[in-house]
Amino acid sequence: MTETVTVGIIGASGYGGVQLVRLLQDHPHLDIAYLAGDSSAGKAFTDLYPHLHNRVDLKVEAIDLDAIADRCQVVFLSLPNNLAYNMAPALVAKGCKVLDLSADYRFADLNVYQEWYGGDRQDGAIAATAVYGLPELYRSDIQKANLVGCAGCYPTATLLALAPLLKQGLIDLETIVIDAKSGASGGGRHAKTNLLLAEAAASIGAYGVARHRHTPEIEQISSNLSGQPVLVQFTPHLMPMVRGILSTVYAKLRDPGLVTEDLSTIYNAFYRNAPWVNVLPHGVYPQTKWACGSNLCYLGVEVDPRTRRVIVLSAIDNMIKGQSGQAVQCLNLMMGWDETLGLPKLAFYP
Amino acid sequence: MTETVTVGIIGASGYGGVQLVRLLQDHPHLDIAYLAGDSSAGKAFTDLYPHLHNRVDLKVEAIDLDAIADRCQVVFLSLPNNLAYNMAPALVAKGCKVLDLSADYRFADLNVYQEWYGGDRQDGAIAATAVYGLPELYRSDIQKANLVGCAGCYPTATLLALAPLLKQGLIDLETIVIDAKSGASGGGRHAKTNLLLAEAAASIGAYGVARHRHTPEIEQISSNLSGQPVLVQFTPHLMPMVRGILSTVYAKLRDPGLVTEDLSTIYNAFYRNAPWVNVLPHGVYPQTKWACGSNLCYLGVEVDPRTRRVIVLSAIDNMIKGQSGQAVQCLNLMMGWDETLGLPKLAFYP
Amino acid sequence: MTETVTVGIIGASGYGGVQLVRLLQDHPHLDIAYLAGDSSAGKAFTDLYPHLHNRVDLKVEAIDLDAIADRCQVVFLSLPNNLAYNMAPALVAKGCKVLDLSADYRFADLNVYQEWYGGDRQDGAIAATAVYGLPELYRSDIQKANLVGCAGCYPTATLLALAPLLKQGLIDLETIVIDAKSGASGGGRHAKTNLLLAEAAASIGAYGVARHRHTPEIEQISSNLSGQPVLVQFTPHLMPMVRGILSTVYAKLRDPGLVTEDLSTIYNAFYRNAPWVNVLPHGVYPQTKWACGSNLCYLGVEVDPRTRRVIVLSAIDNMIKGQSGQAVQCLNLMMGWDETLGLPKLAFYP
Amino acid sequence: MTETVTVGIIGASGYGGVQLVRLLQDHPHLDIAYLAGDSSAGKAFTDLYPHLHNRVDLKVEAIDLDAIADRCQVVFLSLPNNLAYNMAPALVAKGCKVLDLSADYRFADLNVYQEWYGGDRQDGAIAATAVYGLPELYRSDIQKANLVGCAGCYPTATLLALAPLLKQGLIDLETIVIDAKSGASGGGRHAKTNLLLAEAAASIGAYGVARHRHTPEIEQISSNLSGQPVLVQFTPHLMPMVRGILSTVYAKLRDPGLVTEDLSTIYNAFYRNAPWVNVLPHGVYPQTKWACGSNLCYLGVEVDPRTRRVIVLSAIDNMIKGQSGQAVQCLNLMMGWDETLGLPKLAFYP
Repeated sequence: MTETVTVGIIGASGYGGVQLVRLLQDHPHLDIAYLAGDSSAGKAFTDLYPHLHNRVDLKVEAIDLDAIADRCQVVFLSLPNNLAYNMAPALVAKGCKVLDLSADYRFADLNVYQEWYGGDRQDGAIAATAVYGLPELYRSDIQKANLVGCAGCYPTATLLALAPLLKQGLIDLETIVIDAKSGASGGGRHAKTNLLLAEAAASIGAYGVARHRHTPEIEQISSNLSGQPVLVQFTPHLMPMVRGILSTVYAKLRDPGLVTEDLSTIYNAFYRNAPWVNVLPHGVYPQTKWACGSNLCYLGVEVDPRTRRVIVLSAIDNMIKGQSGQAVQCLNLMMGWDETLGLPKLAFYP
Repeated sequence: MTETVTVGIIGASGYGGVQLVRLLQDHPHLDIAYLAGDSSAGKAFTDLYPHLHNRVDLKVEAIDLDAIADRCQVVFLSLPNNLAYNMAPALVAKGCKVLDLSADYRFADLNVYQEWYGGDRQDGAIAATAVYGLPELYRSDIQKANLVGCAGCYPTATLLALAPLLKQGLIDLETIVIDAKSGASGGGRHAKTNLLLAEAAASIGAYGVARHRHTPEIEQISSNLSGQPVLVQFTPHLMPMVRGILSTVYAKLRDPGLVTEDLSTIYNAFYRNAPWVNVLPHGVYPQTKWACGSNLCYLGVEVDPRTRRVIVLSAIDNMIKGQSGQAVQCLNLMMGWDETLGLPKLAFYP
Repeated sequence: MTETVTVGIIGASGYGGVQLVRLLQDHPHLDIAYLAGDSSAGKAFTDLYPHLHNRVDLKVEAIDLDAIADRCQVVFLSLPNNLAYNMAPALVAKGCKVLDLSADYRFADLNVYQEWYGGDRQDGAIAATAVYGLPELYRSDIQKANLVGCAGCYPTATLLALAPLLKQGLIDLETIVIDAKSGASGGGRHAKTNLLLAEAAASIGAYGVARHRHTPEIEQISSNLSGQPVLVQFTPHLMPMVRGILSTVYAKLRDPGLVTEDLSTIYNAFYRNAPWVNVLPHGVYPQTKWACGSNLCYLGVEVDPRTRRVIVLSAIDNMIKGQSGQAVQCLNLMMGWDETLGLPKLAFYP
Repeated sequence: MTETVTVGIIGASGYGGVQLVRLLQDHPHLDIAYLAGDSSAGKAFTDLYPHLHNRVDLKVEAIDLDAIADRCQVVFLSLPNNLAYNMAPALVAKGCKVLDLSADYRFADLNVYQEWYGGDRQDGAIAATAVYGLPELYRSDIQKANLVGCAGCYPTATLLALAPLLKQGLIDLETIVIDAKSGASGGGRHAKTNLLLAEAAASIGAYGVARHRHTPEIEQISSNLSGQPVLVQFTPHLMPMVRGILSTVYAKLRDPGLVTEDLSTIYNAFYRNAPWVNVLPHGVYPQTKWACGSNLCYLGVEVDPRTRRVIVLSAIDNMIKGQSGQAVQCLNLMMGWDETLGLPKLAFYP
């Protein structure tokens, strides 16, 4: 007997929306029952994404939370920051499981949220029930959750690189440097001059230096994992490519005797039961394209004996493991299913 | 009860090989029993393609036709031109179904082959049993075949654009112009200076003008479809992207009264039972990336009433519908399975 | 004694504006006296283009035609279509030489303009004095002009490919097919979703099929060159690169005896005195990047004896020879200077 | 009276060679008198680089050091590592000024060279006279030199970012992390699989982690500048673009009271007389494409008060300021000319 769960997506017109629609085509137990949008309400989804002609027959409807809760057991919120926290409480109250792809439910401390994202949070009670949606680190919490604040794209790549080091106290916490590189799809589908192909192609540049909003998210989870307050140096760069994030993570090892092989052993053990993390053999460093089109995170680990630093290279598809695929992975856990269910397992190469 | 068919791939190290390996991961009835290579024999497949670490556990073995035929019911030949015709006869004789991805078995007239590809063909008898592997046009022949010469990448995109026009006698045959654009993966994995990123990125240029070897292949099938000898103008261009072919096809309509809507009707009818062809609505022209990562061919059709020309835009993934996916589609037919079995159905976008 | 001419640029904030500002840095006789813009008025030019920090010290001022005419002997109009024709008459009346980069002054017949571009033209008298700004074809007219409608980007590449064929009556006029490919900078700096890197990278698609507005421009000049009405098939494609246009031009030769060498001779003779056209040797076809960063047009010519067609490949930098460089070339002629003065002569490669 | 100096280029066929040939077209006092190559000897230079057809009329000759020294006052060596040190001594002995673009003459200690590059150095006496070719740091030494080992591409971008910090003792030396990103042209024109467009496009990955050969070069100069031994963490990444390097440099400030404005003042003062270094205003970070096609280095500086780190972003064109342009800049100094003479001053944008 096949179990079928009805799903709603609010914010269907953006890249998060189209990823979810695409992923759910392959999921055996999920059916889209409601596609909701604001400016796109009333349009056929294929008007927004014509490549789905003849393949996806869905219409975008207005955001009517009552109707959505009536029709859907699960709701994905794929909206700009500062919007989900006005919707999630009502949906949870009506019995929906809610997965938010924005930053709204990633922070245990809403003051930190408001400091970095603004907004006026009156939903403290429901926010307190939210779980951070990074399954490799919070699997059992997610299994029990009704509200998940899915991890951000940069934090996903970065925290999977850092977690074994932090959990096991292997590094000097004040030495963490994260140099991250993202494809332009991370900027969303809204037209901005700096994301035009003519501007962003054939070039790389940093942005948000020393002030990007994924910094406190990385720090919150890093502190949680290490049991001590952690400040990180996080620098994102815009890459001339569509998809993919590479996070290059540096830190000083506390034990000068550790070599790359030790770290490989530690990482393989740490991720032994993580089907979406692929720890590469010594000397192999991931290409972002290896991850693109899959829900995988590839990790390469190297120790520099000259400097006593560990360097971890972490590659994901920012749109899948960094966003919508991860949300489906979380949902799989929330439903008691295998966490790999219905998710793409390998990239096409080249 | 699940039927499982054993498969061999000769020429595993190239892009055709890695596509097949990847595609077969998702196919419910096919198991790889033999990966064969020449220079790569003895290596783990993950040494060639490290992103498959922990996911594909296969070793490349020497090309031993007897051993291959012993272990495999089906053999894919993914080799440079001029090699398959020395292997296919023996494999067919031993009872294997053979699908060749090179040009060796695409030509009914081996003189044409030798004129454009060189070589010394002594395999006329077996070549005469080969079927041209473009399922949308030769489905029933493929179903009965033991040897298939899978269609080339440019010919696939181009012939799917031309076939309705040719079969129904709608165009002046001497007016066909094919302006085709391909991603650089079409040039294979062998290192050549002109395919370096530093050379080919941020640029476009034509090559093989008036002499590309896919010309006689397109002409052979076009003549077959129209029942008259056809010469075409075919110009390929190297694109600064990895995957994808767009074929822009021009021809003069014989009936000046035909409008775009007529053509849309004709194309939709022609491909009604072709699950891998997606005829777009009027005014929508395909992007190559819509097809990439799937076995789909997208067609856009336009009539210019000022010039009486029809313009057809045809987009495929050159590595899937233009090569390995098509081979699996052919095999599905040869085995009596649904032709969509195990093949990727939709791109990720963007 | 160095002659210095004062120059104004109206529409400074777009790509045309920044190209002109850049080109004029290297011109020995031109000084920018007025940068005018609408939404950007009041800003430092380096706020719009920070790479010019410490190199260009100019402020964008409001569009005040009187002030511009007072300060400037020459004015470049680099605006969207339908705006220049409200400004050029006043500027010409005040004695300025005017070069318009939009379509407004490219058409001898304003009805054709209004049919394809809309607008309400009341400036027939002044428009009648405008010269089409493609120096290789209208050099002596430009030398005497006070108002030049600089040729469009696609028409420039295409007409330089077609001109020798049309002038010498070598082709069947109803067989002209133009398959053109442009980098995304051709779409300008205004943010549009379809020009985002995430949308347009790693892909190619056609647009404006059978209805692009450069069609009547190409046809007007083609008819003028051949002395007969000409209709062309023109299909533009958006390329995943920043700069460059390749126009692949097809036509049937009237004389079946002509071979490539004949055409090479004809093209070399036709462009003997054209310093910005580089006719390539037989068998060499241009890459767009060869032209990028220079004012050159590269031409490759091939005859297909099988089909009796000539294929001409024409590559330019759409922002230089296709726009601002050409405007400076025109101005050089208007001022009686060498037409190569101050213009970039060769690309950097790779 | 115009002074003309005759120049030879050994290793003309690679990217360094073609950059030099291109740059020298615009230099008022340099004439190419000898183009030397090994496998390319006997060929016209336009056979290697057809875009130079009709523009550069030079033939590649065999590497005959006597003949080169007879004809040339200056010789550029643009060869793979380990070759120049067999040629430079003879050329210097014959009175040529020699600029080497490889690593051969960058190291004061030849043991370090041999440890990282191999080879067998018997040229200690002449190597001892070599000057490190980074004019912003060693201008007066270069002015007096006859043999210059031009700085590497990554070291150039990185050392210009680090120099003010090191010279003024502003940072904790053991905290330097350099995360660098380079376009694929840095890998040269020799065909390698990993540099194919199909492999390297649409992706980013690190290489040479903890062992890249530019590490000791950066360390040597950093130690020299700071007066103390310095070890750095240097990680290069291959970017999906042709040209450009971005070096993102991190270090902890010793003085917790320093803010970004202080650093801006320091950098502007340090580079006051450096015409090729452009220190950007606060909050502006360089795009690599801003530098491409020019000899400029763009620097952006930021202090993170939370972590007490300074982050410096440094962008150059790896082929110009990172290689051939820098060599010409060095030569300008060696000849007593203005160091900007004949070099490209600004990129085209976009």
